[in-house]
Amino acid sequence: MAVGTKERISATALELFHANGYSATGVLDITRAAGVPKGSFYHFFDSKEALAVETVALYRATTHVELLDGPGTSPLRRIHEHLAHVTRMAEADGFKRGCLLGNFANEMPSQSAAVTEVVEQALESWTVRLAAAIAAAQEAGEITNKGEAYRMASFIVSGFEGAVARAKLTKSRAPLRRS
Amino acid sequence: MAVGTKERISATALELFHANGYSATGVLDITRAAGVPKGSFYHFFDSKEALAVETVALYRATTHVELLDGPGTSPLRRIHEHLAHVTRMAEADGFKRGCLLGNFANEMPSQSAAVTEVVEQALESWTVRLAAAIAAAQEAGEITNKGEAYRMASFIVSGFEGAVARAKLTKSRAPLRRS
Repeated sequence: MAVGTKERISATALELFHANGYSATGVLDITRAAGVPKGSFYHFFDSKEALAVETVALYRATTHVELLDGPGTSPLRRIHEHLAHVTRMAEADGFKRGCLLGNFANEMPSQSAAVTEVVEQALESWTVRLAAAIAAAQEAGEITNKGEAYRMASFIVSGFEGAVARAKLTKSRAPLRRS
Repeated sequence: MAVGTKERISATALELFHANGYSATGVLDITRAAGVPKGSFYHFFDSKEALAVETVALYRATTHVELLDGPGTSPLRRIHEHLAHVTRMAEADGFKRGCLLGNFANEMPSQSAAVTEVVEQALESWTVRLAAAIAAAQEAGEITNKGEAYRMASFIVSGFEGAVARAKLTKSRAPLRRS
């Protein structure tokens, strides 16, 4: 168990949950794909649910919401860079897997309260940071729409998640371009 | 097998797929909940996948997209009535289950090409009919935004699906109000 068996299990689980969903992925699928004995799973994790909570944290780190945070560069440019990044993430696999947060938002409420809670925290944190950047852009005169920043951010996040889900169906960028 | 065993299986499957997802629902869960012998399932359906295709058709019928179709009443009123209807559908169970089309858009691409195809058809048909109503409302001067109607419709559908998914997380209407 040299270079982080635990980390290997988490990274593999993130891949499989993202590609196939939580219910469709068993502990045995994860340990097999990670190339570790099944017993080692329960040495590191209490349950598949506890592991899923950890994969949400891993995924959040890849979304680079900190691109939204100022100060320094133009807030509008920060918003564009962040949205371009999450769009590239969805595009990287030909829109096959969608956004893990959107996938879990749909799947997890009927499966796990703990995972549902961290997914909501991730989306809320994203919305709040996007709203702060929008407010800064309004302040700087880069966005002239006078709408309430949090409401605008919320609409962008919902629109993005809905469009990414739609893009999965056709494996096409079109729904994202339209949103 | 008096009053439609097949219909009972389909209606029960729709309930369970909607509440818990496709992967989390087994054929045995469906036949048990429907109160029919497991053997009767394969008398009527080739597979769980074939049944899921049928549940999408059943669900589509409940979304009443025909509320969008003219002519007759004001196109803007038709749009409001339809969107109020689908919002009430999501609200009816306290935002627990979300929209079956949005749930399946996230879950099914990794599980079934056949179900993915009918879900995409349903969302595309919804978008096209909503776009027609938007174009009619623009024509009638009820909508002054000169945006391309199909693009606006697409944005509304994505925003709705994303907001409904978010509403599931918190069991709250707030994300829909914001969108």
